[in-house]
Amino acid sequence: MYVAMNRFRVAPGRGETFLRAWRERESRLAGVDGFLRFRLLAGDGLFISYSEWRGRPDFVAWTESEAFAKAHAQARLPEGTLLGHPEFEGYEVALEQMGASR
Amino acid sequence: MYVAMNRFRVAPGRGETFLRAWRERESRLAGVDGFLRFRLLAGDGLFISYSEWRGRPDFVAWTESEAFAKAHAQARLPEGTLLGHPEFEGYEVALEQMGASR
Repeated sequence: MYVAMNRFRVAPGRGETFLRAWRERESRLAGVDGFLRFRLLAGDGLFISYSEWRGRPDFVAWTESEAFAKAHAQARLPEGTLLGHPEFEGYEVALEQMGASR
Repeated sequence: MYVAMNRFRVAPGRGETFLRAWRERESRLAGVDGFLRFRLLAGDGLFISYSEWRGRPDFVAWTESEAFAKAHAQARLPEGTLLGHPEFEGYEVALEQMGASR
């Protein structure tokens, strides 16, 4: 399994603007082959768009698709929302353990 | 849901040493209340110990438990494995979307 993350530094006081933009954004991931799960993670001035994929090739195929281009063309944030550009990180899942609380 | 991550910068050529230490480590998470899932994520020189919790209070309770102290007392890595100290980041899940491929 492959995990893709984009890390966004959000300007002080702009967290709600950032979250609203994601809530109102039309996701185009639903039917994408190999897409497993998306989450938006909200931290202390740092947000992560986190997605799980069957494997890295599925993620790469998505980034090269027309749906990806459309999704990102409409993903405009008001000026001053972010501090710098988002930073991409990709990971393979090396170990996994499930809890009994699930 | 709460996500806890520790980010580890691993020295060049030491990735396998780092992974082996985690594979051989005795996990004490299994029965912990509110623990949902653990993953070790392997990136490009950067590894993340990633865990999901029912909520932040469950994670905090774990970090204050005797099991946590024991788990970390035995988590020794050979000198020179890491570049610097791990960096902790905690997140609330703000949005979630599931894929049809699951």
